[in-house]
Amino acid sequence: MNSILLEVNRKRLLESLSISSSIGSSKNGGLNRLALTEEDKAMRDIFIKWLREEKLEVRVDDFGNIYGKRKGTINNGPVVAMGSHLDTQPCGGRYDGILGVLSALEVIRVLNENNIETLYPIEIINFTNEEGARFAPPMLGSGGITGEFTKEFIYNSKDSSNIIYKDALETINYMGDEKNRLKNVKYFIELHVEQGPILASQNKSIGIVEGIQGMSWLSVKVTGETNHAGPTPMDNRRDALVPASKMISIVNEITKEIDGLKTTVGKINVQPNVSNVIPGEVEFTIDIRHQDNEIRLEAIERLKEKLSTIALMNNVDVTIATDWNSDAIEFSPTVIEAINEGADKRGYTSLKLFSGPGHDAKYMNKIADTGMIFLPSVNGISHNEQELTLDDDIEKGANVLLYVIHKLANMK
Amino acid sequence: MNSILLEVNRKRLLESLSISSSIGSSKNGGLNRLALTEEDKAMRDIFIKWLREEKLEVRVDDFGNIYGKRKGTINNGPVVAMGSHLDTQPCGGRYDGILGVLSALEVIRVLNENNIETLYPIEIINFTNEEGARFAPPMLGSGGITGEFTKEFIYNSKDSSNIIYKDALETINYMGDEKNRLKNVKYFIELHVEQGPILASQNKSIGIVEGIQGMSWLSVKVTGETNHAGPTPMDNRRDALVPASKMISIVNEITKEIDGLKTTVGKINVQPNVSNVIPGEVEFTIDIRHQDNEIRLEAIERLKEKLSTIALMNNVDVTIATDWNSDAIEFSPTVIEAINEGADKRGYTSLKLFSGPGHDAKYMNKIADTGMIFLPSVNGISHNEQELTLDDDIEKGANVLLYVIHKLANMK
Repeated sequence: MNSILLEVNRKRLLESLSISSSIGSSKNGGLNRLALTEEDKAMRDIFIKWLREEKLEVRVDDFGNIYGKRKGTINNGPVVAMGSHLDTQPCGGRYDGILGVLSALEVIRVLNENNIETLYPIEIINFTNEEGARFAPPMLGSGGITGEFTKEFIYNSKDSSNIIYKDALETINYMGDEKNRLKNVKYFIELHVEQGPILASQNKSIGIVEGIQGMSWLSVKVTGETNHAGPTPMDNRRDALVPASKMISIVNEITKEIDGLKTTVGKINVQPNVSNVIPGEVEFTIDIRHQDNEIRLEAIERLKEKLSTIALMNNVDVTIATDWNSDAIEFSPTVIEAINEGADKRGYTSLKLFSGPGHDAKYMNKIADTGMIFLPSVNGISHNEQELTLDDDIEKGANVLLYVIHKLANMK
Repeated sequence: MNSILLEVNRKRLLESLSISSSIGSSKNGGLNRLALTEEDKAMRDIFIKWLREEKLEVRVDDFGNIYGKRKGTINNGPVVAMGSHLDTQPCGGRYDGILGVLSALEVIRVLNENNIETLYPIEIINFTNEEGARFAPPMLGSGGITGEFTKEFIYNSKDSSNIIYKDALETINYMGDEKNRLKNVKYFIELHVEQGPILASQNKSIGIVEGIQGMSWLSVKVTGETNHAGPTPMDNRRDALVPASKMISIVNEITKEIDGLKTTVGKINVQPNVSNVIPGEVEFTIDIRHQDNEIRLEAIERLKEKLSTIALMNNVDVTIATDWNSDAIEFSPTVIEAINEGADKRGYTSLKLFSGPGHDAKYMNKIADTGMIFLPSVNGISHNEQELTLDDDIEKGANVLLYVIHKLANMK
């Protein structure tokens, strides 16, 4: 069985994708399908119809996650799972996690039409609210079943209209049962677009994801003294923005000295932010990522030290708080090897890389041997209506997923 | 007549100030008396009552500016005027321009109680909406009568509730007649707090203002490319905030090399301003001031050149627009000399300096020989509830104003 090279039906897969692209479609060729909205419900309904057509056993759990189970030879043992999410950002693209769910569906369809049995059951999953665009934080569905968040925390997450997750779930009739949550899962594979430029710029079709980068969020607050731009001589000023600017420059310079480190100052707020008033207070964030936790934590210490020195030299105060630390995770060597093998057997170009953003696979890694397949994002663009993954790459990715699932579901 | 040294009544002056401080007073010892509000009306009503008690001929013009005229020996010739404004910022102080109006009132009271005649008539003025805090831009009352702004422009200026100036003026019953505007004015003297730290830090009581600094406002727009913080490698980024930070630093460094130049980056807006997104666009303002127009304009060219170089080196685009240019003005040597003489005769410490902020005197300089007397602001703080000018300095300032007005109103 392991030696056969099954193939997905490219046309059928692209048709499913095309149907998905018509549900919640936005003006400029993207999707606006926020979690637990009417659009999300419409997509869920079609997805469940597709699962039933494949004779899968469909379940919905208490977070609205949808599962479709295909029996194996051994049905009282562990399952092999695959999937991602069907929700999008407000001006999101048509590929993102959707490809992961629809490729998984295509894998099931191929196995079914070829009457292929597997040792272990296979489950397909659509996770709720991966994007975090409607309910923060992201990945609530996968976080819920893996113990990352409590049920109470998830249920009370509010959208911008103060609607809570629980009510939104009930409104679209997707409140399921706690006993339906995924259990006893041996492997989990998520196919997803890269959301970055690495595969596309290196002309590789398959990204073999080795893990997810560790990440820290710092918030830096620089306090000087507000004063009028007109009368206050340069020597008498305690402008908070001038040293804050030096800090932002130096963070970038230090980052470039450390291989693989990424830092981003994405958000800055100046008080009072008036053109003829010397800023008295500046707050900015630093997003710091690296695949090695130690390097990341050392870099944070170095940045803190440097920022304090700049504050001292400029006669302002600085406080630096760590708002969030999320350690890097490494995916299962077995899964990485299976993906690598799948790409090689097909003769697809591939590249091992770390994921920058988090994914449902990050939390799934806590309860299963997990891995991810990345597909190229043209120009590295994602979370954007211009998001594009080429048809050829979609087909290749689904073929690798098929190979990996088939292999792992038969591996004793 | 010129040799007598008249003196103001300190107690009476401070009492008037205390009454003013009770109208629109804020919780923390400041004033919230925005132009053309009920609070402003209450202060205007009392002011007019005081003018009438001094037998002045009271007029209100079509911008709501209030005048009180004291006859001179020659009544068909020019007038000598003094005054400032009674409106404040929303969290403003009790001194600001108020001292200029109440000191002028005190000057009239002293002249009256001593039955002192002057050659030319003396007018006291309260200008409408100097602060610009309710209706932008500032100095609409003085700008209106000196031809800086058209009547239409002023009347249609809107506050944050979309109420126009004209309607606000009518609502508080201060719509006067165009024919009441100040005409044929030979000298104008404005007493005001410094709003800066120079006098206080040098222990001087009287600021002899030589002019108002020239000012330019630039807006700088840096355009890079928005991308996700997670997947985008440092080398692939076109982060707009990193070069913008370098620009802000360099603006500060260049400024310190040029004697007397002041620059302030007070306002910065980052798009999309999200902590895990690489900023694609940054806009910031540069406020540039110098008392010498040529130095200011040369500095602007140098900054523009430097900023363009930084943009080029960082692979981002930059556009630099000049939003506003206001040339420096120099006050009348006659008035400067009179103020200097007044301070000297009293034995008050004094200092010649340029004003950073604009004042009603700036526009009045277009139609009259103009000058300003500055009083120390403790710690340089103004437009703030903590604003403070000491009683001793208030008395000294009013005495100098009295001297100057008496002298100029008799100078052929």
